[in-house]
Amino acid sequence: MTSSAVSRLSVISNHITGNNTNNESRGDIGLIGLAVMGQNLILNMADHGYTVVAYNRTTSKVDHFLENEAKGKSILGAHSIKELCEKLKRPRRIMLLVKAGAPVDSFIDQLLPYLEKGDIIIDGGNSHFPDTNRRYDELQTKGIEFVGSGVSGGEEGARTGPSLMPGGSQAAWPHIKSIFQDIAAKTDGEPCCDWVGPAGAGHYVKMVHNGIEYGDMQLICEAYDIMKRIGKFSNKEMGDVFAKWNKGVLDSFLVEITRDIMYFNDPNDNTPLVEKILDTAGQKGTGKWTAVNALDLGIPVTLIGEAVFARCLSAMKHERVEASKKLQGPEITGESPIKDKEAFVDDLEQALYASKIISYTQGFMLMNQAAKDYKWKLNNAGIALMWRGGCIIRSVFLGEITAAYKENPLLENLLFHPFFDKAIIKAQKGWRSTLGKAIEYGIPTPAFSTALAFYDGLRSERLPANLLQAQRDYFGAHTFQVLPGKENELLPKDKWVHINWTGRGGDVSASSYDA
Amino acid sequence: MTSSAVSRLSVISNHITGNNTNNESRGDIGLIGLAVMGQNLILNMADHGYTVVAYNRTTSKVDHFLENEAKGKSILGAHSIKELCEKLKRPRRIMLLVKAGAPVDSFIDQLLPYLEKGDIIIDGGNSHFPDTNRRYDELQTKGIEFVGSGVSGGEEGARTGPSLMPGGSQAAWPHIKSIFQDIAAKTDGEPCCDWVGPAGAGHYVKMVHNGIEYGDMQLICEAYDIMKRIGKFSNKEMGDVFAKWNKGVLDSFLVEITRDIMYFNDPNDNTPLVEKILDTAGQKGTGKWTAVNALDLGIPVTLIGEAVFARCLSAMKHERVEASKKLQGPEITGESPIKDKEAFVDDLEQALYASKIISYTQGFMLMNQAAKDYKWKLNNAGIALMWRGGCIIRSVFLGEITAAYKENPLLENLLFHPFFDKAIIKAQKGWRSTLGKAIEYGIPTPAFSTALAFYDGLRSERLPANLLQAQRDYFGAHTFQVLPGKENELLPKDKWVHINWTGRGGDVSASSYDA
Repeated sequence: MTSSAVSRLSVISNHITGNNTNNESRGDIGLIGLAVMGQNLILNMADHGYTVVAYNRTTSKVDHFLENEAKGKSILGAHSIKELCEKLKRPRRIMLLVKAGAPVDSFIDQLLPYLEKGDIIIDGGNSHFPDTNRRYDELQTKGIEFVGSGVSGGEEGARTGPSLMPGGSQAAWPHIKSIFQDIAAKTDGEPCCDWVGPAGAGHYVKMVHNGIEYGDMQLICEAYDIMKRIGKFSNKEMGDVFAKWNKGVLDSFLVEITRDIMYFNDPNDNTPLVEKILDTAGQKGTGKWTAVNALDLGIPVTLIGEAVFARCLSAMKHERVEASKKLQGPEITGESPIKDKEAFVDDLEQALYASKIISYTQGFMLMNQAAKDYKWKLNNAGIALMWRGGCIIRSVFLGEITAAYKENPLLENLLFHPFFDKAIIKAQKGWRSTLGKAIEYGIPTPAFSTALAFYDGLRSERLPANLLQAQRDYFGAHTFQVLPGKENELLPKDKWVHINWTGRGGDVSASSYDA
Repeated sequence: MTSSAVSRLSVISNHITGNNTNNESRGDIGLIGLAVMGQNLILNMADHGYTVVAYNRTTSKVDHFLENEAKGKSILGAHSIKELCEKLKRPRRIMLLVKAGAPVDSFIDQLLPYLEKGDIIIDGGNSHFPDTNRRYDELQTKGIEFVGSGVSGGEEGARTGPSLMPGGSQAAWPHIKSIFQDIAAKTDGEPCCDWVGPAGAGHYVKMVHNGIEYGDMQLICEAYDIMKRIGKFSNKEMGDVFAKWNKGVLDSFLVEITRDIMYFNDPNDNTPLVEKILDTAGQKGTGKWTAVNALDLGIPVTLIGEAVFARCLSAMKHERVEASKKLQGPEITGESPIKDKEAFVDDLEQALYASKIISYTQGFMLMNQAAKDYKWKLNNAGIALMWRGGCIIRSVFLGEITAAYKENPLLENLLFHPFFDKAIIKAQKGWRSTLGKAIEYGIPTPAFSTALAFYDGLRSERLPANLLQAQRDYFGAHTFQVLPGKENELLPKDKWVHINWTGRGGDVSASSYDA
């Protein structure tokens, strides 16, 4: 145990109340759910000097874990919920790492008979934030402190330092802060874990993180597809490109592992393993929730939306195989049409970088709206810092976002910060050129394309929605407003106007019926 | 009254049962809600010889309507729900045209005390189909037949012949079929109204219709924006283009009214009125529901998604005005770079047509999945025919879709029918060329772009999702499957495989935790 961990533990012990703490009750925290994430979080906590009590519904998993990975560490086993609760110091800290949905409610119900007021339940799974809101409200009435915490970093992150995004009962934070910040990833000495906000705010921010992760992965896939199908690059060449990119503005965990994946060969025949993997990806998780939430809040988070839909399309393998035989389009037969490979790769890097800036801009627009609509105070700089290390989307880029929001916490739009404004202006030539090639050669780039459409839309003082409003008024008497500066008696300022476009329809406006 | 309407009425009277029919009870149908759609539907029903009883919560609207638009017609007023119900023949047919949501439930509750078993409530509003499912179930237990019917066509359609999409209680259909098919639009002699399916199927199909309407409108807006900002066309020139398109493959109500809108001048200064309309459009209605449903069912209905998001972005006027000052991009100063205007317009027509084919393809993919998931039998040819006339999206194009599904009701994908296959192959050159220009000159085309990305994605036998699966397995032990033909001992057929990519992580796969 490090000395800082010892001093933190003594702080924690000050919070322990009640005289029913017996010799048995020496666990600092309990953890339910021994799948890969749960096991690795326990080992991580033990590494930092905490005594962890491990429980799993299938108790043979507890025994197997104790006899193997957990052997010789400060890890105790429990074979029942009762035993788990008895082995914990007060207030009890119990973290669930189980499948989101009914299992979380079920374990909370099983725990309640053994808990006392002030005990803390932490849900570290990928729960949907409205569920966390509900559980928070329910447990508040019972005197139990509930925390919903995003946990990111996958298998390895959980073991060596994940990004943690806890929110919910503020009263719980002093009791879990040390454990959470000790086990979290560190960036420039700062833990990638801070208090996010009330109720379901922690899981909300994790949801957006996952949505952005969907977007980042889709962008990298599009870059790979363009290099492979237009540039006719070998996997080794692509690995070299990702390796190079990982030293520049795209320096990030996902680019790094893509480099490794490109270099990884199947030992059976020494050819790239990735080319043997079935090209169908699942969705319906947090990426989908982010897209639905964006639609609900009216924020154009188009890149995540397209990334989710791209997974849906990938899953339609049978239909695609049929379509590939029937639907014609451009085809590159023979060698690549690209003559200057270096310029091609540089343009692609800019396309990827610019699209990524758009995706994060959209993500922060969404969180800003959520903070307004749900009356949460969210700290953008803090969120960017939490994502800066430990998690799947960790990157140098998030350091720039942290800096931008630290400099101006009220920044209206990430693109308005000089750093990103300059970056995207510089990236445009390569971005537009890459997209032009994708369209010419028939390579699908839904995420690159929507990013550019968003950028060109955002910087359009006037969009063609005036025509849309005219159409809606024409066929449905939906009324419209006048453009500032164009007012007259027919079109008064700040009024909703209906025009009889045909001379035939009535002058009844659609006040209470929306067709 | 036409003679056919008279003979239908005598058929209807055969269904009237009970001996409590007194002199007062002569209304064929009651209608609640006298906003523009309700008033026009009543007038339409009266034109076809039906006696309609009109009721509105604010009863002064009833009096005003009776003294004006309804004067001299077979329209009776009611000043209470009780009076409305007393004035109707049995089984009572009562149609609600009120705002979706709580008002529908409220009127149902108000009606119930005055209804008898077998009476029929029809919700003609834009209710969300899960609400219709719920109401259908609740009213079934009370012996009341419930119908949720899509009504499209706007103000004018309601008056002269809407498209009607009824679903719900099949037992109600014989009692309302004559009225519905009499007042509906006709195409080639066939009514644009048929029974859709059980429970909320009618409102579901109307929801998808509205989503497609969002898409069609967005596509026309993008074409307008390209002509205006790249081609520097005058509104008169654009009106001429839409007039020409309305005689070809794009022949449709929305193109027709866009032509009218382009030609429509503000009488105050004789300049185009549309250019004075504020460019912010609302959403949150049925378009959004369609996008959310597409995400829920896992079908890439990307064009409607982008159309909804485009409205969201249009609504951010303040942010766009700020962005237009800060974010640089290509600008056309001076005259248009387009030399051959005719070729430019022809390319644009192909881009619009191809994108529209994609949008309808996606819409029918969604309905096919809904039919599977919700266990409804939906008749694609019938749906296309219902949309062929009367409604906002009516077009010659829907005649082609009707024909395709009549020819092959089990058609897997609309693009697989030779007509659309050929059409989209022919359209590609213009489609890709138009998009290339939009990208070059910085005009946002989210819907055109996503349509092409979908097309190129669908016809990709292999998409880059293999990399995505590798990434997920790398960081989260999520496992993957092998591509057919690439199996070996490491990668067995039909198995989910986890690879230890780094040599560091464990071999525990993420069986119960989805990070």
